[in-house]
Amino acid sequence: MTHDPSRRALLAKTAAVAVSGVAAVGAARAEPLPVPDSNKSLGRPLPPEEYGMPSKYESHVKRRRTDVLVNKQNYSDWSFTPLHQQLGTVTPTGLIYERHHNGVPDINPDQHRFAIHGMVRQPLVFSMSDLMKYPSVSRFHFMECSGNGLTDWLKPAARTVQQTHGLLSCAQWTGIPVSTLLDEAGVSPSATWALAEGGDGSAHARSIPMKKLMEDALIVYAANGEMLRPENGYPLRLFIPGWEGNVSIKWLRRLKLGDQPWHLRSETARYTDPMPDGKWRQFSFEMEAKSVITSPSGSMKIRPGPIEIVGFAWSGKGRVRAVDVTLDGGRTWREAQLEGPVMDKCLTRFRLRWNWTGEPTTIASRCVDSTGYVQPTVADIQKVRAITGFVQHHNGVFPWSINEAGEVKNAIA
Amino acid sequence: MTHDPSRRALLAKTAAVAVSGVAAVGAARAEPLPVPDSNKSLGRPLPPEEYGMPSKYESHVKRRRTDVLVNKQNYSDWSFTPLHQQLGTVTPTGLIYERHHNGVPDINPDQHRFAIHGMVRQPLVFSMSDLMKYPSVSRFHFMECSGNGLTDWLKPAARTVQQTHGLLSCAQWTGIPVSTLLDEAGVSPSATWALAEGGDGSAHARSIPMKKLMEDALIVYAANGEMLRPENGYPLRLFIPGWEGNVSIKWLRRLKLGDQPWHLRSETARYTDPMPDGKWRQFSFEMEAKSVITSPSGSMKIRPGPIEIVGFAWSGKGRVRAVDVTLDGGRTWREAQLEGPVMDKCLTRFRLRWNWTGEPTTIASRCVDSTGYVQPTVADIQKVRAITGFVQHHNGVFPWSINEAGEVKNAIA
Repeated sequence: MTHDPSRRALLAKTAAVAVSGVAAVGAARAEPLPVPDSNKSLGRPLPPEEYGMPSKYESHVKRRRTDVLVNKQNYSDWSFTPLHQQLGTVTPTGLIYERHHNGVPDINPDQHRFAIHGMVRQPLVFSMSDLMKYPSVSRFHFMECSGNGLTDWLKPAARTVQQTHGLLSCAQWTGIPVSTLLDEAGVSPSATWALAEGGDGSAHARSIPMKKLMEDALIVYAANGEMLRPENGYPLRLFIPGWEGNVSIKWLRRLKLGDQPWHLRSETARYTDPMPDGKWRQFSFEMEAKSVITSPSGSMKIRPGPIEIVGFAWSGKGRVRAVDVTLDGGRTWREAQLEGPVMDKCLTRFRLRWNWTGEPTTIASRCVDSTGYVQPTVADIQKVRAITGFVQHHNGVFPWSINEAGEVKNAIA
Repeated sequence: MTHDPSRRALLAKTAAVAVSGVAAVGAARAEPLPVPDSNKSLGRPLPPEEYGMPSKYESHVKRRRTDVLVNKQNYSDWSFTPLHQQLGTVTPTGLIYERHHNGVPDINPDQHRFAIHGMVRQPLVFSMSDLMKYPSVSRFHFMECSGNGLTDWLKPAARTVQQTHGLLSCAQWTGIPVSTLLDEAGVSPSATWALAEGGDGSAHARSIPMKKLMEDALIVYAANGEMLRPENGYPLRLFIPGWEGNVSIKWLRRLKLGDQPWHLRSETARYTDPMPDGKWRQFSFEMEAKSVITSPSGSMKIRPGPIEIVGFAWSGKGRVRAVDVTLDGGRTWREAQLEGPVMDKCLTRFRLRWNWTGEPTTIASRCVDSTGYVQPTVADIQKVRAITGFVQHHNGVFPWSINEAGEVKNAIA
């Protein structure tokens, strides 16, 4: 299907066909092309009311469970955003990635309650209609699973960028600053941590520092202009900008304030990082600067000639300042063009023109964020981390190899 | 349904219920609330692949054909965005308003062609895969039908803000600057206008000044991260930022360059504005600064106490600089708070805290844009325009009346 944007790179950029080269169509004619059937027939009429859906010709654009890291069940599982098919920085709401610990609960918003308790002056319970009355804010932010890319450490097998980096999405999130509600409850001066718990079958919970909650965390009920989808936490979730997705607790039902972390299962058995000295690092919340080339990317095929290199960059620490691209396996780097608006903790698109000669090579991108942090290589990371099992926070420079036939493949696998 | 955001204003802002006031729930308990059933059961498992949909509890959120201005057919018709339910500045893609002249055509993108011809050095024909290779840009812009609000001139009958202002949406549009393709075709120095024609059954077409096309117009194939929906022009449309929606030709199949406008049906019989001297104004493309309060708005009900006033403002001439709100029928105005990022030719959300005493009143908003233009009153517009029949470009200040019972109604009707 030639309309698949993943084929963007399939054809050399000899883009337009001169009309004079098209049989029976002259440049001087009023109708330069045969009038299509769609011009000669009635279209589909408007129904009385509707919620629109994508074209049937786009039915291949789906989020997918991975066939790389196969689960024997599909309750504690993931689905991946098709980044190579994302056109713009906003992820279509129906394609925002998922990570559930016990499937998607069915929560009636009229019955949902959210509580703030623990070390507060006045414990509070909110219904959804209570919450909808508070002043809201809307912010564009990426969201990334700490496990994004973990399949590429020990036994790299992922083929497409959906599989290597698809636990990543971006949306306009709408909700209430957590600080607004905590101020109303009256936070004890001794409270330094909060336990956030979801209303799903796993009762997924995390300990979160009060400092971040007061800084920029949101109690979110909408994404991209509408109420959250069930799989994204309907009717209420926490959203912690720039931090690993699993702390943005979905189906949020309570925040309990305390003076130390709870050392929950997701802070001991999971979501921890092995270090070279044999110890495991806890509470590595921040998603550090990262980037990936989405076109050309794994399973695409290119032809010699001009190629438009396109990708995404992001940082949990702030804005993307620059993205460098290597076209020769890391020997030299060229600065890519960033597409505005470049927003804080938000996906940013970069692009670079390249003339591929047909020689096999390896391409990759490297993000520099507004703090000056430079996305590390895998070798850099291996110096300070132990790479064993399911390692989180893999933000290494990610290479795609291109062979003589123009086939693009995961260069780590 | 208490989760309906249109009920945001229904309850006074005595938002949170103290836990101590809730039976059998004590502030000191580890579980401040009964554990909900969703915490005790398996959720819905993940399917192998999916395109997500809104919650069943949100099925009332739809775009709708109007029952105010009833058409006897539904091919040349409109559907309206539920602005009072839009949470954030991005309109959910499935809720972007529609205006069709002959229904929604079914166009196979593999067969679609787009031509540039007329006064060019080299006529060009593009397939969709040709177009996907060009450097793209993504921009947040509102889109508004020139007829938005026309039902409120002669016989005002619209009750909700969906009916009064719902021919308005906002999205991240992705495509190619028109200038890129025109430069490739080589524009004749004499070319001052272009005819843009769609591939629908009405062959809807408009004459557009070359200056605007070269300035910021886009050939768009995606909205909010994915390929356009069929009703929004799939697979290709023109997008003219800040101008009346009908020039952003959907299902775009050609641009023909010339040295004068074509005076098409949509430039003589429609999309023209009657003036006081009996003449009709043509080519009034720009959508001037406008705003509307979406909450509280028509058909909502409020109670005395603190009220959060929320609305949208926009301008086809640039950014929103300020929004003033009157709470006393226009006698006094207070400056509302704008929510960032405030972007060029983009919906901007404003808000203002109000303590409603219970006295009947009329509320309204007034937009000031970055050129200094101030949204006029209906009386202002009537001085320079003739208000007869289907008048386009109604950007007058729009009032909602509130009676003693707290019922919010269209104050023009």
